[in-house]
Parts: sequence; C-alpha cells; structure tokens
Amino acid sequence: MPAMSDQSGKAPYRQLAESLQRFIEEGTLRPGGKLPSVRLMAKRHGLSPRTVVKSYGLLEDLGKVEGRSRSGFYVRPHLAPQSPLPKMARPMARPAYVGVSDLAADVMEHSTDLGSVSLGWGSPDGNLFPNRRIARMLSSIIRDEPGWLARASLNWGYEPLAREIARRYVLDGVKISHAELIITSGCTEALNLSIRVVAKPGDTVAVETPAAFALLQTLQSLGVRVLEIPMCPTQGVQLPNFRAALLSHKIAAVFTMPNFQNPLGCTLSDEMKGRFYDLLREFDLPAVEDDVYGELFCGDRRPKPLKAWDVDGRVLLCSSFSKTLAPGLRVGWCAPGRYLEPVRRLKMANTMGTPLVLQKLVCDFLRMGGYDHHLRGLRRAYHSHVLQFAEQIRRDFPAGTAVSRPQGGYILWIQFPKQVDSVRLYHEALKRHISFAPGILFSSKLRYSNCIRINASAPLTAQVQSAISALGHLASAQLPRTTGRALLRKFPALAR
Amino acid sequence: MPAMSDQSGKAPYRQLAESLQRFIEEGTLRPGGKLPSVRLMAKRHGLSPRTVVKSYGLLEDLGKVEGRSRSGFYVRPHLAPQSPLPKMARPMARPAYVGVSDLAADVMEHSTDLGSVSLGWGSPDGNLFPNRRIARMLSSIIRDEPGWLARASLNWGYEPLAREIARRYVLDGVKISHAELIITSGCTEALNLSIRVVAKPGDTVAVETPAAFALLQTLQSLGVRVLEIPMCPTQGVQLPNFRAALLSHKIAAVFTMPNFQNPLGCTLSDEMKGRFYDLLREFDLPAVEDDVYGELFCGDRRPKPLKAWDVDGRVLLCSSFSKTLAPGLRVGWCAPGRYLEPVRRLKMANTMGTPLVLQKLVCDFLRMGGYDHHLRGLRRAYHSHVLQFAEQIRRDFPAGTAVSRPQGGYILWIQFPKQVDSVRLYHEALKRHISFAPGILFSSKLRYSNCIRINASAPLTAQVQSAISALGHLASAQLPRTTGRALLRKFPALAR
Repeated sequence: MPAMSDQSGKAPYRQLAESLQRFIEEGTLRPGGKLPSVRLMAKRHGLSPRTVVKSYGLLEDLGKVEGRSRSGFYVRPHLAPQSPLPKMARPMARPAYVGVSDLAADVMEHSTDLGSVSLGWGSPDGNLFPNRRIARMLSSIIRDEPGWLARASLNWGYEPLAREIARRYVLDGVKISHAELIITSGCTEALNLSIRVVAKPGDTVAVETPAAFALLQTLQSLGVRVLEIPMCPTQGVQLPNFRAALLSHKIAAVFTMPNFQNPLGCTLSDEMKGRFYDLLREFDLPAVEDDVYGELFCGDRRPKPLKAWDVDGRVLLCSSFSKTLAPGLRVGWCAPGRYLEPVRRLKMANTMGTPLVLQKLVCDFLRMGGYDHHLRGLRRAYHSHVLQFAEQIRRDFPAGTAVSRPQGGYILWIQFPKQVDSVRLYHEALKRHISFAPGILFSSKLRYSNCIRINASAPLTAQVQSAISALGHLASAQLPRTTGRALLRKFPALAR
Repeated sequence: MPAMSDQSGKAPYRQLAESLQRFIEEGTLRPGGKLPSVRLMAKRHGLSPRTVVKSYGLLEDLGKVEGRSRSGFYVRPHLAPQSPLPKMARPMARPAYVGVSDLAADVMEHSTDLGSVSLGWGSPDGNLFPNRRIARMLSSIIRDEPGWLARASLNWGYEPLAREIARRYVLDGVKISHAELIITSGCTEALNLSIRVVAKPGDTVAVETPAAFALLQTLQSLGVRVLEIPMCPTQGVQLPNFRAALLSHKIAAVFTMPNFQNPLGCTLSDEMKGRFYDLLREFDLPAVEDDVYGELFCGDRRPKPLKAWDVDGRVLLCSSFSKTLAPGLRVGWCAPGRYLEPVRRLKMANTMGTPLVLQKLVCDFLRMGGYDHHLRGLRRAYHSHVLQFAEQIRRDFPAGTAVSRPQGGYILWIQFPKQVDSVRLYHEALKRHISFAPGILFSSKLRYSNCIRINASAPLTAQVQSAISALGHLASAQLPRTTGRALLRKFPALAR
C-alpha cells in the first residue's frame, strides 16, 4: 500500500488519491479489483475515515474507481495503454463542398429502428435522464399556470433561463452575461445561425477533421466550402497545421470543438486554447465554438471553452441541454459575442422562438432540480459506458484496430485496418439490425473509409455486446484470410 | 318578419338564415338587436324549434349573430358598407433587397411589454385557447411515459401527428399524404426551409404586397431579392399584374398567401386559385404557400389552399398550430410536394427535430381534445373581435381612414390619410405604452408609410378602446389643422 510521505503540501486526501491512481495506472491495482475498505485504509495510514471517503470520491469523479452500493469501491476497467490510437489525417490541398447527405439521412433514419442496436446517431441514451422528475416539474408548471403553453416566445428567449446559463459559466470562470445569450432550438440551430452570420454561401470555413457529420450537413445546406484541419487524436487541432491553412487559404471563419471533439473526443489544453485564440486575432477571424460536450468531462474539472479567452467578442459559443438534461426538449443557446444583433435577427427569421414552456422547465430544473447532482452521476455513467464499450471493442474487433481515448462525452472513433470498407460494413450490419456511423460521413473528402463512429452512451447490455461482436466478425471477414500463407510466400524463411 | 315562400328548394333552416342575413345587411335588424326567441320564430313561420335553432347556429357560424347564454341571439356589430377600403400599390419597376429589420426587431421587443397595449406582433391573444385542457393532456402524457421528454425527434416528425394533419386536409378535399408532411418548429421554420429550397441567395422571389413583415425578414436573412406584386384589398393578387411581372423579370419562385392574406385579410376565389396555378405551370415556377390562417374563416367553409390544385408537386404548403391551438408550442408543418427530400435534409441541418413530446401532445389533442369544437368557438371569437376593433377604429380614427375587411384571421390593415407618418405615430404611441406595426415594415420599398397593421385577436377591452382612441388623436394631430383657413387662402371666393 502507498506510503503517505508526500512533501508536496497537497491535502492528504489528494495525496492518497494520487498514489492510488498511480497504482491503478501501473496495474498494481487491477480492473475489477476492490479497494481496501474505508475503515481499514484510514487505520493503516493514520487518516480520518472522512479523508479516505473524500479521496475515493475524487477517484470516482476521475473515473478510476466506482462505488457499488453496500459493497465498496472497485477499480474500473480501463483501456490497455498499448491499444493503438487512430491516425491523423493529411492536410487538404483545397477547400471542398460537402456531399454525403444520402448516407447521413440513412443513418439518421435507422437510428430510430425499434428492436435494433442503433449506435450511429449522436443522441444519448434516453434512460440516463431524470425524466420522471422533469415530468413532475413540467406538470406543476402547467397546472399552476396553463398560460405557459400559449405564450409566444420571442427570439432572445426566456431571460431567467439565460441568467441561469450565464451563472453557470461565471462559476466556471467564463464571463458571459445573460444579455449576450440567445436561446435556440438545440445546439443545431445555434450553430446554424452562427455560421450563417460569419460565412456567406461560397465562403470557406476551416473545420477540424474528422468532424461531426451533422455539422458538415449544416455547412452543405448553407453552400459553404470546408477546409479540413487535421487533428491529433489526443491533443486536438495542431496549431502549425492550422496556421499553415490560414496562410494559404482565404478563410471566412473557423469552426472548432475544443472540448471532447466529436468524433475524436480530444481536448485542447488551456495553453493551446490561448494560442489558438491568438491565431484567431492575428488573422482577425471569428470562430464558431461547439461546446455541447463541455460539461461531460471525466476528470475533476470542466475544461474551459475557448470563449473564456475571448476578449473581443469574436467567439460564437454554441451549446445545449440535449446531451446533459433532456435530449427531447431541443433547448440550446448561443453566446455570439459581437454578433449578438445579427444572430438575434436570424433566430427570429429562422424559427421565431423556442417554446417558452420548455425554457421555463429547464430554468426551473437548473434552479431546483439538482442539476449538478444529476450531472455528476451522468458523467460517471457516460465514462463507465465508454470504457466498457472500448474494452469490448478491443476484444472483439480485428487486430490492428485503433480506438480513440475520449477525455469526455460518449463518442468512440474506431479505425479498422485499412482494407475494411466501413460503408460495406454498414450495409452488412444493417441486415443484422445494427447501425453505426461510417467514417466517410465525417469528412467532405470521403476520407476515413476504414473508420466508424460509435455512440457509447448506453449501458453495454448483452444485446450490445453481441452487436459489437457481430461487427467484429463482419470486419474481420473483410480482411484477407490468408495472411499466414501470404506471409510465408513473401518470407519463406519464416517457415523454417 | 320574413316570409318563407322560397322556391329555391333549399332546406328551410337555410332559407330562414338567408332571409335573416338579408335583413341584417340591409339594417332592418340592427347591430346589438335581439332576434325573436326560438319559440316565437318557430310559431310564426310554422317551423320546428329545431329548424330555427339550426338556422340561428348557421348565422352564428357566419358571424352575423352571437348567442349569449340564457339570453338569446343578438345581431353582431358589422362594418358600415360605406367605410373605404385601403388602396392597391403600384407595380414595382425592379426587384429589391429587404432592409427594415431594426424597426421590426423594435416592434417585436415591444410586443412583450407588460402593462402596455401591444397590437403590433402577429401572435394571437393567449386567452383564447384551451390551455387548461392542453395542460391536463400534457401532464397525462408525461406521467404515463416520462420517456417522451428524452426521446430525440428526428427531422420528419412524429408520424401519427402527420397522419392527423393529412386526415384533416383530406376531409377538406385536399389530397395530402402523411408521408409528404414534415413537422417543423412553427410555420416560420416551414417557410424558411421552403424558401431556401426553391431560391438561392441573389435570386428573386415574387411576393404579394403588402406582405407579412416576418416573411420579409426571412427573405432578407436569406439574401433573396423581392419583387412585389400589388394586391386588391378584397380579391387578392391580380393575375394580370402577376403575369406582367413574370414576363418581365427572372423569378425563381413565388410566395403567396391565398387565404386571409397577412396583412390585407383577402382571399383568392377558387376560380382565381385555379388560374393562379395555371400561371405557375405556364412559367414552370414553384410556389411557397403560407396557409397559417386557412382554418380561421368567417364563412361556413374553409377556403381551399392553393395546394388543392397542385397536380405536379410544385406547391410547398406551410402552416402551423400557432394561431389555432397553442401559440407557445411552435409546432408547424410543411407539405413540400416534389421538394420533400431537400426540405427534410434542411430541417435536419436547421434544428434537427421539433420536440417530440409537443408533437405527441398536439396529435392527442387533434384526436381527442375536441379540436373542431374549439376551432368553431375560436373563429367566432376572432371574427367578433375584428368587427369590434374595426367599428371602434371607424369611430375614433380621422376621416378618410380606410380599413380592411378581412374574410378570416384577426389582422386589420389601416390606411390613414396620406399626411400621416406611421413611424412617427409608432414612436409617439410607444410613449403611451401602445404598440402596433408601422406600414413600411410590409414592403421592401418603404411603401405604406401612412398604413398600420393591428392585431385584433383579443377582446376589445376598455384599455384597448382607449388605446385606439389615443391612436386616433395622435394621427389626427398629424393632419393639417388649418384646413379651413388654408382653403380660404386658396379659394377666397368661399368666404363670400
């Protein structure tokens, strides 16, 4: 057991957590193993039981252990460190229009098939949300005042909700005023309005690659060209690539997802966010930021949005409650900085207003529904499901398959050996009632044909396990079976 | 009392209604006067009481009389036939971009001022809706199945709702399949998606003038140019004007509101709709049809949408429940004909989906909430309020003011003598906490500077009465007071 002789001056609970974390990472404490009881641990290290509980709680927040009721704390499954990471894309020679929407529509359509395993669409599993509590709250709102159903909402939204959203940002160290917020019909509308304000049809927008396919659909629908900036699968957008792109192309705006990028799951460090923002200023560019997964971190702190660095209003921050509270309500928001007025106008012309009763509902939940408590549980659930999915994929998918290591959110990006055609795999899987998102949807250039995106928000049930196993078989069947013999033909010396 | 010796072969209740209607129109039965009791009327004409009740009911549906509980039937106020109608605009020399949105945003903002009389925005009075019944229905849906709040809705909407909407059209003689319908976030989104599909930025769209200012905002936001087609205040768009415009300009699409046009309230006859459609075919043009007031007729039958003539899928029909059932829910629809696929794609890129639980709610209400019963009462209320407003305006506004005679909906268009500047009037009225929509908002060319639009959906309370009276004073104050003396200076002979 770890010695507690740390000279760092850190609080004892943190020292204990850090040394336990080291033991877990080095494999001394193995996945599935039980931690010593709080009583025993306290006694052994001369700490109060309260300190140990706090320490175990931190490890739980970090996703390293999980508490099981009346049993104790267990080390969670984690990705074997040797599992390979997906590769980075090459930079693009020139911007292109997007054109893959038939397949995207097909993926969306199949994501609602009942009785099938739908891993393609980005919406989270609906069972993870406090639906019953939300329902009670809504019933009480409309019982007390049925007029909420009739009141037309105007474009800038319900002010008390805007205040709640702004308050949360301020607590996280991001200065956003409620007066700068516009409530939208989900993050999709927020992105749509933002992009329309900063880019006209025919303009070029720099976008990270791979990129969320709903975003590419939006850019396509607006007639905007895309210049893809390659991403590092763990550290996010590479600034030298970004700078080179800005120097060699006329860019109207940048689209970025610095926290838990969809589909890679990677996050820019604070330092890199600062430098990213400096580049925006140097080239005098606006940036549309999608922070829809920002609250779904695995660590102990919410990563700041790029907006936190925005001293001159060039960042249009977009997000929503669809991944954190209620996927069905379509309540999102936009903090458009200096573009406030044009975004407001567009909101009015686009959908007039977002249903007021739903805005009131979300506002009440933020105030008195225990949103933070719910979020803590939700983060743990997503993180646990992602790790379980990744472990299952590592076991069942063919050798040479790379899996992303998301630092938040619930999306996995999987790169098969390059012989695997994921569109063919998609159609074969559909026949077995399994759907996922093929990689080519995540680029305007039909890249990533051997990649797929998996929504890992739901628990790994037996049905999902066998779906993953079936996907593994189908992918393996696409690989040359005669590898052994082919190797022998190529290197006869091996037969000796 | 009328003799019942009608040889037309019409049912007796209809004969009675028609002769009573004639007496009302000729002034024999005066506004506010009481009809004879059912018993007396039946005795006098040798009819059954049931026939008389049916006859009075028809007159009520026609907006000629109103039943007051335990009192009897009374003749409603109606517009004096001699009150002048607003004038038609002149045709436009060339298309123009729209540019009046600061004022539009201002009007919208002031429409939510508490304690003021807000007649500017188009949303109906929220007290006219069965909010309590809708609230109970929603509570029951989410109590039985809270998962409705979490289920993500996809772009084409909730199929059972689409079936209900299609069924209503079929009953009205319009063949629309549920598979052709897309549920949208209000009619605003439906119009937005439709226009984006048929016109690219820089294209020209033919639009009736005056036109709903929210529509002009939408066209402005899309960078589409507008060619205004003058309207007759009672018969709607004039086909010779329309044809001349199509011959002399390159038009990408037509925007039309053939039923209860906003703001004029006029309706194209069936015959003219057929000829309008023939013109569309001749010039091979798509038409975006806004039918959001279609259900709010004053007569005995819903006027058909242009879509009823659409044999080759060139009409994109847009509507919503925001004026008929629940202004706050933002549930609308689009039947885009041959443009189904592109509109679906755009819907996905624009807002993803419309909240599923609200779609389910509207669907349940259509099935079991007594929607038709509610609509009958709502039509009578709107019609009665419009007549009361118009009567008040005729009394309080300066001589020479013309008032529209809407055949449905709840919008009044008022044309002051040409010296009145309605933007100045707007700012003066705001100081007295009264708002309306100034006429220049209804054109891309700053026409209609002496016109205003009034939302007459709410009851004519004492507060509204004095607001109208105040508007009348403010408008009169803008007219030359010295008319008498000026006349004498100009024509000294008059003094003799």
